[in-house]
Parts: sequence; structure tokens; C-alpha cells
Amino acid sequence: MSERYDVVGIGNALVDILARVEDEFLAENGVEKGVMTLIDTARAAELYARMGPATAISGGSGANTIAGLAMLGSRAAYVGKVRDDQLGAIFAHDLRAQGAVFETPMAAGDYDYETGRCMVLVSPDGERSMSTYLGVSEYLSPSDIDEGMMARADWLYLEGYRFDGPDSHEAFARAIAACKRGGGRASVTLSDPFCVDRHRDAFRRMIRDDLDLLFANEHEVMSLYRTDSLEAALAAVAADVRLAAVTVGPEGAWVIEDGVRTLVPTAPAEVVDATGAGDLFAAGFLHGLAQGREPVTCAAMGCVAAGEIITHIGARPEVDLKALLAGRGL
Amino acid sequence: MSERYDVVGIGNALVDILARVEDEFLAENGVEKGVMTLIDTARAAELYARMGPATAISGGSGANTIAGLAMLGSRAAYVGKVRDDQLGAIFAHDLRAQGAVFETPMAAGDYDYETGRCMVLVSPDGERSMSTYLGVSEYLSPSDIDEGMMARADWLYLEGYRFDGPDSHEAFARAIAACKRGGGRASVTLSDPFCVDRHRDAFRRMIRDDLDLLFANEHEVMSLYRTDSLEAALAAVAADVRLAAVTVGPEGAWVIEDGVRTLVPTAPAEVVDATGAGDLFAAGFLHGLAQGREPVTCAAMGCVAAGEIITHIGARPEVDLKALLAGRGL
Repeated sequence: MSERYDVVGIGNALVDILARVEDEFLAENGVEKGVMTLIDTARAAELYARMGPATAISGGSGANTIAGLAMLGSRAAYVGKVRDDQLGAIFAHDLRAQGAVFETPMAAGDYDYETGRCMVLVSPDGERSMSTYLGVSEYLSPSDIDEGMMARADWLYLEGYRFDGPDSHEAFARAIAACKRGGGRASVTLSDPFCVDRHRDAFRRMIRDDLDLLFANEHEVMSLYRTDSLEAALAAVAADVRLAAVTVGPEGAWVIEDGVRTLVPTAPAEVVDATGAGDLFAAGFLHGLAQGREPVTCAAMGCVAAGEIITHIGARPEVDLKALLAGRGL
Repeated sequence: MSERYDVVGIGNALVDILARVEDEFLAENGVEKGVMTLIDTARAAELYARMGPATAISGGSGANTIAGLAMLGSRAAYVGKVRDDQLGAIFAHDLRAQGAVFETPMAAGDYDYETGRCMVLVSPDGERSMSTYLGVSEYLSPSDIDEGMMARADWLYLEGYRFDGPDSHEAFARAIAACKRGGGRASVTLSDPFCVDRHRDAFRRMIRDDLDLLFANEHEVMSLYRTDSLEAALAAVAADVRLAAVTVGPEGAWVIEDGVRTLVPTAPAEVVDATGAGDLFAAGFLHGLAQGREPVTCAAMGCVAAGEIITHIGARPEVDLKALLAGRGL
């Protein structure tokens, strides 16, 4: 029998194009600060032409999490769609070089779309504003879901952003069903408050009916339950799902387990680029679960991984996360 | 009459693929530390598959210099060959976004070669070891040299690496002639001791007969004159060219003007990644010349620019070099 995976992630496979900007640039170019906006080819070309010199680093929210898990030593695999172009080759290389399994067939032939990319504009305060051209990543189809792989996943990790896409809900349903048949459990990250807005009902149904673990930040859970009160949102989360981790920026993360809430603090860090903070929190948390740790310890591990990623440009770790956790007694 | 350029550079248009490695990786994979090695497609694929997750940042030695000049406010243009592929688009964007002129036609159609790339492996001590797949950059031809542009250059800046290539010597001769007809002057950087080894006679002839300014480091001048003595090499430089700047690592740079040698010290800096140090030294120096500064001041400006580039990954400036120079009273 084949080896099992600690975590299999599904998401939008993207390369990040990162540049530092002043906040005026965001305003002048109609980029909303701190969130992810979907853009089309024409807008992508326009914005790219206007932005300054940039750095290209493999990204994609779920892929960042899987890369972090692989670096931590978890057995991790990723499912996402790139094209057989140069950015696709970079994306595949970086994930595999990190030790993750990535076997989703690349789109080839005269396909209309290129590998997706996310223009990440980093403000002086470290906040990132993302404009995403999904490209071929949007066309991940149910047939790309290898049910055999899903059945070997202890945890499935679904990227909320992936809810944008013609076949994505069906693909997710297939993945969850296969995973559960194999004895695994399923988690989702809400990704972004506007993404929640686009798919609120689908998210809520899935969280209530199918999920074992929810990742979100404070803005996303408040959007999910249409409330301005974090308190009310956390109570609603507790009622809907057995286990959840809700990050609250520099304050750390709330862990909600069987209705019991615990705030796990995070160490202060200078934010150079917030890109990937949530992704790496999830990586640390899931790695903890794979190691059989208690959720509160898992959240502490997530905070350490997130604390590393915000100290530099890009959402892929630059130091050995395993050593970093060990140094903190985790 | 069209505006003149302070500097027009010609070089290999490359995208750098940068990753941190332990020195053992270099040894195990036959990568020679601290130098640039030309590699073919097969070796590029092999090395890329073995190296870890990487960051893609526009590079190319001469292009780094031109990007630095543009950031400093000089009127700068670049000539180099990319393909009409994704890496070519990134290269062109980054140079233009920095304010440089880049009009060399992209290779299109069913050309055999992609945009060139340089795998830059950065050791813990900050030294970089480069494996370059030249790709289409090697095929810059004399017909790519716009003589009208060359005639409007106050300074021509030729990248030594570009001596590798079927038509490069002819292309350079055409550029120098056009520049001189237009009243401009010509400079070259030796780029690398092994590059000097491959083209020693051509370099020496050009330096003696055609050049007004030589950029090199200590290893390159010693290779040029086949000597183990820096002293002997500097004396030979002084005899061959009116003006030269020879960098000597953390000690700074020797300026040689009409036979008179002056050592210009550099401020100590922690080396994160030495990639681009020589390129940015040349940018600071040429910007000084464009501003009418004395060569010794130009060298101090070069040292400040080089000092910035070695404090981070990649060979394109991350902070405002103009402000940095102003802060140092330059």
C-alpha cells in the first residue's frame, strides 16, 4: 500500500510578482489595500506596465502552506493547475524542490491561458495588496482530482480562493468525499473577506456539513457570519465546526475546540511583507496536528511559521522552519 | 535632435534564478565557487532540478548597471537580446519600470532559444556562484546595434561576458565606432577572470586601442596580464588605458587616472549576496562621470551603490540609491 500524506492541499497555482510601492500608487491605480482582487488579462497587463521592478517568487496561498509543511518535514502534496510555460516550470520546481509532491498535469497545447500570477504590491507598513490574474489555475477540473491521492490524505486542505472557478465546487466535493472514504479529515481556509462574500452560502454549508477544521482570520469570519462583532463570529464558528483557528493579526490566534476558545499569543515581529502570513500559520498548525500535538500547541507553531514569513519579501520560507520551531521549544 | 544618453550598455540579457545553498551543494554538483560558468540546456535543466526553491529577479551584469544608472537619474539605455517569452517580458518590464530605455527587438517566431537565465547559488558567506544558460542572449547580432542610439551615447558600457557569442566582437566594434563618431567614449567591464581567459587578446587589443575607461576587479586584471601580482597588473593597466577603476573587494577600489593610482576605501557591510557588486559599482561610477565628478569621487559613489546591492538577494537595487548617495554627501 502506498504511503499516506499528512496533508494534501488544493488551490490556485500562482507565481507572485512582488514589488514595493507607496500607498499613493495603490490609490492612483485603483488597487484596494490589504485584500485580493481578481483581475483579467487586460488589467493585468495595465497594472504590470505601471508597477515598478519586481521579484518573482512562487506563491499561491494553498501552495505556500504545502511548501511550508514540506519544509517542516510533513508529507505534503499539492493539486493545482499551471501551464507548460516558464512560470509554470518555476512553480513546479519550487514546490518539488521544497520536498512536496506535485503531480497535477500541466495544461499543454494551444490552451488560451497562461500560468496564473498574482501582482503583490507591498506597502511601507508591510501590508500587501494583491491583484490576481488566475490564468489557467481557474480551470482545475474535477478530472484533475486524483481520488486515490485524496484517499491517502490524513488532512485535506482546501484554499477558499479556489471557490472562484467554474468547476471548483464539484472538484472540492469529489476531493472531500474521497478523502473521507480513506479515513481522512477535511479543512478549509476562507482566504479573504471578499472571497467569503462571493461564496458565503457554499462556505457555510461546507463548514457545517463536511469540514473538520476551519482556518480564517478575524475579517473573514465576520464576513462569513455577516457581523461586525468578532465575538459573535467566534460564537458562530464554535457552533458550526468542531475545530477552528482564527488568526487576529499581531494578537495571535483563537483556537476553538469543541466550543472552548483559547487565545494563543504571537511574538512581536517587524512586518516587512505580510504576504503568506495566514498560509504559513496554517502550515505550522497542520504540521502540529500531523505530529499529534494539541490544537493550542499547533496554533503556537503556526504563529512561529507566520512570524518568519512576514520578515521578508515573498510567501515561501527563507530559513529552516524546523530549526526555528525547535529553537522555540516546539 | 534627439536627446543624448549618459550611458548606453550592451550585455547578456538574463533573468537571475537565485537560491541559497550550503558550500557542499556546490562541491557535490561541480559548481565552481565565486565565478561564472557557461552551461548548456541539459546542464541547466539538471542543475535547476537539483537546486532548492528560488527567487527570479531580472539580472544580466550590464543590465544591472543600466538599471542602477536609471535609478540614480542618469539617462540610460540597454541593448540585449531576450525572447518574446515570460522571462523576456519580466526582463523588459523591470528595466523599463526602472526608467531605462530598452528597445532591442525580442526574438520571436520559432526561434530555438529561450530568454537566457543565470542560476545564482548564494553561499552562507554571501559569495555567489553563477551557472549561465545564455539562451537567446548569445545571439545579439550586429544588426541589433542601433548606430543612431550609439551615436547619442556620452558613454558606451560594454559587458565583458558579451564577448562570448558568435557575432559579439563585430557588434561591439560597430557600437564603439558609432559612439566615437558621435563624440562619445567607450568603457568595458572585464566581468570575470575566466571570461578574460577566453578572450584575453581581444580584450587587450580593445583596451589599448579603443577604450577610454576600464572596469575590472583584482582577479580580472591579474588574469588579463597573466600575473599573480596585483601591483604588476595595476601598472600594466596604467600603461594601457587613461582611466580605470579596479575594485578590490572590501578594501574598495583603485582609481587609475593618467598613471596616478588612488585607493578609494569602502564602508564595511555585511554581505548577504555579492551578486551585482561590480555591476552597481560601475553604475555609481558612471553616474558620477555623467554628473561631471572627479574619478575618485565617482569611485566613492560606486562603492556606496555596491554596498547597497550586497546587503540583499538579487542584483537590482532595493532602496533609493539617489537618496543613499545624498545621505553620504555624494
